[in-house]
Formats: sequence, C-alpha cells, structure tokens
Amino acid sequence: MPLHSSSTSPVSFAEGTEVPLLEQPHHDSGPAFLPLAPRRLGDLARVRVHVPAAYPASGLAMRWIIDGEIRTAELERVAEDPAGAWWEAELVAANPLVPYRFCVLAKEGARTASGAPVPAYAWLTAAGLVPWDVSDVTDFRLVAHEPAPEWVADAIVYQIFPDRFARSAQSPTDADGRPAPAELPEWALPRAWDEEPAAHGEITGRQYYGGDLDGIIERLDHIAGLGADTIYLTPVFPAGSVHRYDASTFDQVDPLLGGDEALVRLVKAVHARGMRLVLDLTTNHTGDTHEWFRTACADADSPEAGFYLFEDHPHRYVSWLDVASLPKLDLRSAELRSRLTRGPKSVVGRYVAPPFNADGWRIDVANMTGRHGAVDLTHEVAREIRGTLRDAAAATARETWLVAEHGHDASGDLAGDGWHGTMNYTGFTRPLWAWLADPESTLNWLGLPMALPKLPGSSVARTLRSYNAQLPWPSRLHSQNQLSSHDTPRTRTVVGTRERQLTALAALAALPGVPTVFAGDELGAEGLTGEHSRIPMPWTAIEDRDGSVIDLEVLEETEALLGLRRAEIALRRGGLRWLHIGHDALVLLRTHPDGDVLVHLARSAHEEITLDLSTLPDVGAVDVLRSVGGASSQVDSGPPELRLRADEAGASLFRLSHSAATPSLA
Amino acid sequence: MPLHSSSTSPVSFAEGTEVPLLEQPHHDSGPAFLPLAPRRLGDLARVRVHVPAAYPASGLAMRWIIDGEIRTAELERVAEDPAGAWWEAELVAANPLVPYRFCVLAKEGARTASGAPVPAYAWLTAAGLVPWDVSDVTDFRLVAHEPAPEWVADAIVYQIFPDRFARSAQSPTDADGRPAPAELPEWALPRAWDEEPAAHGEITGRQYYGGDLDGIIERLDHIAGLGADTIYLTPVFPAGSVHRYDASTFDQVDPLLGGDEALVRLVKAVHARGMRLVLDLTTNHTGDTHEWFRTACADADSPEAGFYLFEDHPHRYVSWLDVASLPKLDLRSAELRSRLTRGPKSVVGRYVAPPFNADGWRIDVANMTGRHGAVDLTHEVAREIRGTLRDAAAATARETWLVAEHGHDASGDLAGDGWHGTMNYTGFTRPLWAWLADPESTLNWLGLPMALPKLPGSSVARTLRSYNAQLPWPSRLHSQNQLSSHDTPRTRTVVGTRERQLTALAALAALPGVPTVFAGDELGAEGLTGEHSRIPMPWTAIEDRDGSVIDLEVLEETEALLGLRRAEIALRRGGLRWLHIGHDALVLLRTHPDGDVLVHLARSAHEEITLDLSTLPDVGAVDVLRSVGGASSQVDSGPPELRLRADEAGASLFRLSHSAATPSLA
Repeated sequence: MPLHSSSTSPVSFAEGTEVPLLEQPHHDSGPAFLPLAPRRLGDLARVRVHVPAAYPASGLAMRWIIDGEIRTAELERVAEDPAGAWWEAELVAANPLVPYRFCVLAKEGARTASGAPVPAYAWLTAAGLVPWDVSDVTDFRLVAHEPAPEWVADAIVYQIFPDRFARSAQSPTDADGRPAPAELPEWALPRAWDEEPAAHGEITGRQYYGGDLDGIIERLDHIAGLGADTIYLTPVFPAGSVHRYDASTFDQVDPLLGGDEALVRLVKAVHARGMRLVLDLTTNHTGDTHEWFRTACADADSPEAGFYLFEDHPHRYVSWLDVASLPKLDLRSAELRSRLTRGPKSVVGRYVAPPFNADGWRIDVANMTGRHGAVDLTHEVAREIRGTLRDAAAATARETWLVAEHGHDASGDLAGDGWHGTMNYTGFTRPLWAWLADPESTLNWLGLPMALPKLPGSSVARTLRSYNAQLPWPSRLHSQNQLSSHDTPRTRTVVGTRERQLTALAALAALPGVPTVFAGDELGAEGLTGEHSRIPMPWTAIEDRDGSVIDLEVLEETEALLGLRRAEIALRRGGLRWLHIGHDALVLLRTHPDGDVLVHLARSAHEEITLDLSTLPDVGAVDVLRSVGGASSQVDSGPPELRLRADEAGASLFRLSHSAATPSLA
Repeated sequence: MPLHSSSTSPVSFAEGTEVPLLEQPHHDSGPAFLPLAPRRLGDLARVRVHVPAAYPASGLAMRWIIDGEIRTAELERVAEDPAGAWWEAELVAANPLVPYRFCVLAKEGARTASGAPVPAYAWLTAAGLVPWDVSDVTDFRLVAHEPAPEWVADAIVYQIFPDRFARSAQSPTDADGRPAPAELPEWALPRAWDEEPAAHGEITGRQYYGGDLDGIIERLDHIAGLGADTIYLTPVFPAGSVHRYDASTFDQVDPLLGGDEALVRLVKAVHARGMRLVLDLTTNHTGDTHEWFRTACADADSPEAGFYLFEDHPHRYVSWLDVASLPKLDLRSAELRSRLTRGPKSVVGRYVAPPFNADGWRIDVANMTGRHGAVDLTHEVAREIRGTLRDAAAATARETWLVAEHGHDASGDLAGDGWHGTMNYTGFTRPLWAWLADPESTLNWLGLPMALPKLPGSSVARTLRSYNAQLPWPSRLHSQNQLSSHDTPRTRTVVGTRERQLTALAALAALPGVPTVFAGDELGAEGLTGEHSRIPMPWTAIEDRDGSVIDLEVLEETEALLGLRRAEIALRRGGLRWLHIGHDALVLLRTHPDGDVLVHLARSAHEEITLDLSTLPDVGAVDVLRSVGGASSQVDSGPPELRLRADEAGASLFRLSHSAATPSLA
C-alpha cells in the first residue's frame, strides 16, 4: 500500500508523542481505573491514573465539566507499586454525562526510562496521550444515565435471518424440496435449501427458502454450543419481501415463520436455556403494503395519512432513500407514536411483554428515524422507546436492550438516555476490514463509491482509538461488534483466508462491545453482498462436521474464542489499553481488577515484538489462553517479558494475573 | 521545550501524510471553494476541490449526510488551470446542517511531483487530509440556518470595560481626582484615574474609577482610528461591583455610567459614525442584590422565587461556581423567560429596540446558561434569544449579533440556530498564547491548574485546525477572536515582547473570526490577571503619543493591520488554507475569488522558508501588503516563489492577485 513511510514500519508509540505506549500514564473507563463508577445522578465517582515509574510526571491534574463549566483539581498520589504510582481523584456525577480528562505535566527535558522525550504538557484523553489542546469530544465520560441491563455487557449475540436459518421438521415442502406454505405470497419465489442466493437485483428480496421460528428452536444446541447466549432476529413481521424490512403489519408475526405462537414458543425455549432474544423494528419506514399506508393512501383524512410524509397525496411521498416501497414514517404524529413507540400497547411495548417477552429491540435505520428536513426527533424517539422499555421492565422484571443501527458516526446519538448502543460499523467493522482485507479484494467499501481500502495497523488503530473515544464507554460496551451482517459481504470473503478470519474472530472476542456473529460466519461462509451472504445454513454438513463444505477450524475456534470471552471477565467488562501499534500487529490489554487479558492480533507474519510488562501495574503470572493461526509467543520471567511472533495471520490471548490486589480505595 | 523531535524541526506536511501542504487537494468553506452557498433549507449548493497537478488523484468522491444517512457521489472534473484541476459537485441543503467530506483516491505507489508518497485512500475534511477513517465531527458543513447579520463577518470589535475606559468631561471628581458621583454605592472605593488596579482579591471588584458612557462618546475618534467599527461593552446595568456581572436590575442602565439616556446618546453617536454597539447580558445568574432575588428571598411564594434554584429557602441556593453573590437563574421558569429572554418586552428584546437600539448581545457564561444537573436548556434558550432578536430586527430593520461566552469546547453549542458565534478562547486565544508566550512566563493557563504551556507551531496548528474544524464555518466567522479580555492577563504580558505582540496582532487581523481588541491592548498595556488588566486608559499619553507610557509601534501596527483587514475581503470572508506548519513559523492563505492573502507568522527567527506558489490555483502578482517585527521576504517570479524570513518574531502579509477569473460555474 502506498501509505506514508512512517506507517509502513511498526510504531510502538502513540500518536503525538514518542513515549512508548507501555511507558505512558494510563486511565480507562474499566473497573480497574474507575473503581467507583456512578450509577445515578449525584453519585460520587473515583478515578485512577497509573503512572509508570518509567514516566517522570511532575504533576497530574484533572479537568472536568459540570453544568457546562470547567472544574479542575490536582490528583493525589495514593499508592505505589513496583511498576509505578497510582493517582486518584474524586468527582461527582452532577450531570448525566460528565466529560473529564487529565493533564500530565513533566519538567522540561525529561525523558522516560527508555530515553523517550516526555512532553512537558500533555492531555490524557480516551483517545490517548496528546501533547496539544484537543476538543472535548474524546474526553472520558462519567455516565449517570440509567444503566443498560446488566446482562448486555456479558452477552454474545448470534444473528439470524429467519428465512435462511432453519426450516422446522413440520415445515411443508414440495417434491423438489421447495417450501410450500399454505399461502404463498405473491412476491415469494420458493427456493430449495441448497440453492445459492442471488447476489444482486430485485430477485434477492423474493428468494423464499422457508426458514421458520420453530426451525430455530430445533437448532438452539448449535447456537448455545458456540457460546452465544442472545439471538438477534431480523424482522419477523409479515412483509413484501423475504428480508421483511418492508412490514405490512406490526400486529402479528408472519404466518410464514409460524405466527405469534411460534414466536412465543421460540422465546420460551430460548429463556429455558437462560438465553435471550432481540427483535428488529423499522421505526423509520414501513412497507408500502403496510395496513397503515394503505389506509393513508385511501383516505387523506385518516389518522394514518398523518403517519407518512405525503408530498402529493397519494402519489408522491417521502421514502427511505427514495425507494417507493418503503414510505418514511412521520414521527411528529402523536397517534403514530402511541401505536409504534409509546406505551405498553405500542409495537415496542407489546412484544417485550407477555406472551412474547422479547429481550429487546434492534432499531433499523435508527440514524434516520425521526429525521427529515428541519425536523430531528431522533433523540426524542429514542428516549421514548427507552421509556416504554423501562415501564415494561418494571412490569416483567426483565430488563431489555435497545440497540440502534447506525452506519456512520453514531456518537452524537449515543450520548443521551435513548439507545443503549449501536451496531458499531464505524468503530469496529470498518477498521477491522480495512486492516484484515484480502490485499486483492475489490469488494465495495460498505456503501462508499470505491473498493475497500487496505490500511496499516497504525491507521486503523487511529480509528479504533479516536472514533471509539467519542462514544461514552457504556455505550461502547453495549454496542454490537459485528464482522459481517445480513447487509454486508461475509467476513471470510472480505479477509480471504482462514488465518485472517481467525484474527478477526479474536478481535471480535477481545474488543469492547458485544460480539455478534452472523449465522454462517462460524462456518467460514462466503458471500459477496448482503443478499449473497444470506445463505441457508448447511445443517447436514454441520451435523456431519463435513470439512468439504464448512471450515471446521473456524467453527472450532469460534467456540474456543467465544468461550474465552465467557470465561474471562476482563474480555467482557475490562477497560482497554493499547500496548503496541504496528503495521501488521496490534497488541492491546483488557484491564480488570481480577486480572488483565492481553491480546495479540497479527494480520500477517511480522518481526518479533518484545513487551516489557514490568511497567504495567501488578503483573503476576502470564498464561497463554489460546493461540490461533500463525501466532506464537514466549513468556520470559524475571522482569516479565513477552515475545510475540507470527509467521502468518493469527492471534494469541494471555491472562495476566495480578500478583496482589490492586491498591484498595483510600 | 522537551517536545518530540518531529515537532522541534519544521514540518511542512500535514498531519497524517507526507504530502506537502502545497501539493494537497484543497477545499474550504470560503467563496472560492463554496461558490454557491445555501442560505435557506432546500437551497442548492456547489462545492469545489482544487487538486494540484502535482497530486496524482485517480478519483474524487463526496460523502454527505442527509436525514442522518450517508449519500455519495463522484465529483466531476470541470476545469483545469496551470496549477491543477477543479472538481465540482452539487448537493442540496436538505437539513439545516449538512456534513460533507471528500475521499481522494490514488493508485498504489503514486507520488507527488516533489516525490512524496500519496495515500491510496484519504479523506479531505475541514481538519485536513487524513489517510484513515475519522468521525464526522470535522466534516465540512453546509449551513442552512438563517444566516448571521451580514455586517458581522466584516466587523472589527473594540471591547470596553466601562468603568476603566473614559470619564466624560462632566463627570464629577473630588479634589484628588477620584470620582465623586451623586450617589456612591456602598461597595465602591473611588480611585484616581492613574492608580494601578489591584491584581487579586475581593478589592478588585470594588475599585471604582468612574468611567462612563459619555466618556466613550468623547473617545470614538480613537476607536474609529484603529479601524474598529463595533464596540462591545461589558455590562452596564447597576450592580454590586465594578464589573457589573452581578446585576441588581436589568430595568435601567447604571446611573454611575450616565443612565438610560447616556446609553441612548452613545448608541446614537456610534450609529452616526456607521459603527455598532453590542451589550453584555448575564443569563446564567444575577447579583444577590438583584430585585428579583430580593423578592425571591423575601417571599418563597413569589414568581421570583421560581427564578432561582433554592435548596433551602432563602439560605441555600445554587450560584455560579458557588459564589454566593451570583445566584443562578432557573430558566425552566416561564415567567423568568418572558422577563429575560422571550419577546420584545424581555431584557433581550428591550435593549435592541428603540430608544436603545443596541446591535446585539454578548451572553455571559453562555456555556452554563440553562444547565443544571439533569436540566439542559442551553440550546432552547439560545434559540429563544435568537428568536427575540429576529423579531426585533423585523421591527427595526437592524440585524443584531448574538455571541456566546464559552471557555472550552463550544462546538456542541454552535451547531444550531442559537448563538451566532462564541468568544473563541479555545480555537484562537489558547493556541496563540501557547505558541507566542514568553518562554519564561509563569502566568496561569487560563484557569487550569498550571502555568501556560509553550508549544511548537506544529502542536498549536493541530488545535487551530482540528478544533476549529468542529465549528461550522459560519459559526467561526461570526465568533470573536480575542488575544486578551477583561478576564485574562494582557496580550503583552503573555507574549513578553513587542515583536511577539505584533505577530499576535497579525494573527488577529488575519485569522477567520471577528478580531476583538480589548481596549488598551493597542497600547501594549500589561496586566497579570483579568482584574489587573482592567487599566484606565491613559488618554494624556495617547493624545501626546507619549512613547514612554504607551507602545507607539504597537498602536501604529494595530491601525495598519486592522486597516488591512478592512481593505482585504479575503481577510474578512476568505476561506482558510494552511501552507506551512513549522516550529517557529506558520504560513496560511485566506482564499477568495477576488484575490488571496498569504500570511506569514513567525514567533522567532527561523530558517528561510521557500514556497513554490505554482501549485496554488491562479496566482498572478504577489504583493507585500505589510511586514511587521522581524519578518522579511523576497518574491521571485518565473514560477512564482516566495521566500519568507524572520530574524525575530514578526509577520508579513501578501496579496496574491488572480491572473484570471476563477473558472466560472459550469
């Protein structure tokens, strides 16, 4: 790649200073550095910074913002360990979001133990240590909004596109193995289970394979076996296509999928296993076959006519990206809001209550919901949906998750008390793709008018650090990380090789955010477009562990890596610290009081990386948890040193036990 | 300074790529690159990118956001000139703010004419060219909100602290030259005009020098002579201190200043010269002597009791930074809003209407206004004030300015239809101070718990570029740039030398934003704190041009540099392009279809900088407009080349005429 020379060789220092990452002062929003996190307005919080002994700080101040104004305090040095010193400060979560950052001072001419020049003045923000003034958007943030459900941070999601996952045993087929339901909709073109979906064209929405909800019940062993505990189902309402994002009603589950009863059965079966199920709702638009839209077109004076944005009734109306079959909803309508988003009888409320009991909603096109011209109701609608879920949870004692689809910078929509999180395409999918993509790939760059770029680790780390720094940490933890989805090419097709897919899987298991596996990715499935990726699951090959059809190593490592996620609390709830940023290797640490987990990701062979772990606070035993692909390592004791190697793409994970308890609160 | 080595030597390339700034594709929000700017929702806009011939772009795409969703288009190559090619695209301002950016593609391994490696994939944003994915916060923005008054972009502001500017001839004094008003308030400690104000302590608010509004009328020649055309007056309402930010009423102008009639006389005199006058309002708090607060304390059931945030009536209440004399207003009160901010009878409305006819408001502590705990009404109140001003302008046919004090990242408060701009401490004052400060200075860092840092040009350019990129361009143009104010040490005290003050002055005259001179800065006045800086103007020395008291060269160059601002439309309304970013020198271009202005700023002696201007579009004659301090230059023709030198701090400005018209619209 013709990128500039300084990024074609590994750099182990952070953007902006030459201080190696391991010698830098560190804070993150995990429990090791935010040991007392606020849960509601007015709570006291305690924040900690660890300054390695290698870094000659002369002072440490905190800057935070209350009621729009800056407050400052100097931190107190409260404890020392062989690696350095802990500094602390307290602050009150006087607003729902309190931005804070640290200023690290040093004497002129100071150098670290390794000889790197130390800036006299540097800000420590969620994007790292920067020796100049930066805006507030990458400040750390205390969040005192009502927290997301406890279970979300621990969740592992398995995404199912219902038509393509599994047909139940009782599902009727014709002699050629094509689905033969009692009533075949006009749009549906029945397909045999082993036919390959088309990649392009109008036909992609009509290829009907006949997967149903009872089929999912029959395959829960597979999902649970991967380590997933939450199912995210794309829409289940009757619609004018197989993807069902063009709902014709929200009042019932599609009979093609088994109807309301099948959804009730599925949720019961899922809950019986201690698992959860999240549904998918289009709040931006309906289908043009929707009963509301039909009424709206038939009667300009109907309440439903106010649900849509007619420019010339009934012929011209606003629709999603000018696709006429997807008329856009006008969320200014109070009647629409009461039917769709507000209260226990709304669509949002009804499906999270008995008898359905879904565990949350993924909101389709959340980024456009309520936005049109000078109107911007997105935050208001998000808060309203959250309120409906809150009220439902009070009745059912089951807390539900609210996650927003968003294809670009979601940070402006995640700072409030609306969506708990987003589908983190910008902060996860895109940087991982740009780093791990097959160098020869000409796949489209997720909707942008170009092929996907191939960027060095230093560049994607910039995005991973700076963009995600703009998300409040809880919003990031409660967002979905996905390597692919029903809207994208398949991970395997993007990265091109098994080894790079394993690296991607390790990143999925290791990075902050809820790992989300699109059904089929665990098999090494390929697909050139979102539509082409919607493969029917090859159950015979899965049952037979048939390596000629599925990639058994990917399947095995999906189980193993997601198993590590379940086993290691640091991977689920730990803070994040970057240790090495290179062209072909990235090393990061998930920090946690119960032990850290170090993650080495390699996209290709690279020179050995030696990490002196003695500057990290309180490192005891270093244990290899797993190595996949071409990654290998060696742990030297004495001053603990870790040597990381790769002769091919791959990843390794290590547990760094703490030798003693992290210094207790003063 | 112990900053990293790459910033201790000049760098002429932008952050993130090695492509020299002069060889980079360029777009800015000025009229040369946004020839068709929207003025209202739905307007068509045309955007242009100039790609130097030196830069081998293989394609150019635009990404913008409508209704929360990304749209893309490829740009069209519409014209060529010897320096390169113009690319264009159209887009509609379908939302009040439309973020947009460009993606510049190149073939792998491509290099610029000078041999710099070109990234295959780079985003061109308002923060520059970056070869990785960035968040949307630095996108360029089309703004279709109702524009600020036309006059603001051309304004030059002179800030007056009324008590210290001038006593009118009729102002009564005692035998010792101390002010002796008819009624001396209890708090006032009369001071002779030539006494130095105290720098610290409670006394600073009590030192009463007796400046008045008629005194300003008598000195309008001085203000006009500097080139300023707009006076910004700190508060004029009766109060419990000399700074008057603790108003005791908003119903009248302080009799100590001459009362209502004096304000009417002053505005008339100002308007008679074609000048304008902006007032200062505290919307966050009043004084504890305010009539509303007295009523509120006396009667817990009064409407006024609802204007404040009592925690334990009347003893405990919320106040500005816990200063008991400044009780915070609760803008949830509709009655308060109708008295203070909403409608023609409110304080906001009354003083912009006859007989007062002020030309706008500077809103004190705007960043805290309406913010308390979970309540955040800042944007709502800003919009309400803007509405009141809009209605008043409809009646008076005089458009008024609304500018918000804000001490940190104001970008979140400037994206709407509220404040036109801010006092740009973060995007102007701080980076200029950090670059130009006396290396020995131990002055406080504008409220942060440390001495002000001394940063290299590369670091402050990061702030100047990246932070200001977060402000919509019109918000930046309509913000105040100030080198010092009544709240800060004096410019001269910060920078330490005449030459560095001249550099600072050139930056003030040249950078986007409304130049704002705090009365006395033009004399080289010194001051260690905001209070100490509030010097009485030494009129005798000014009249006598007495160089033993005032710095005549600074006075002369203030006139000259602000005169250039008035003469050169590019300095007032041009876009901004960075040409060179060095340790001790910064070179930038204000781009305009009627001719560009190039600005060379040096903080000390530096090695000669040679700029090949042939990569800039359409450069004809290059004329030196002015050189100050130690800056000098040489213009070579042929391929036009500019050699910039400094043997001491200083600055030069050059007019770059266009040889032909910029290619006309397709």
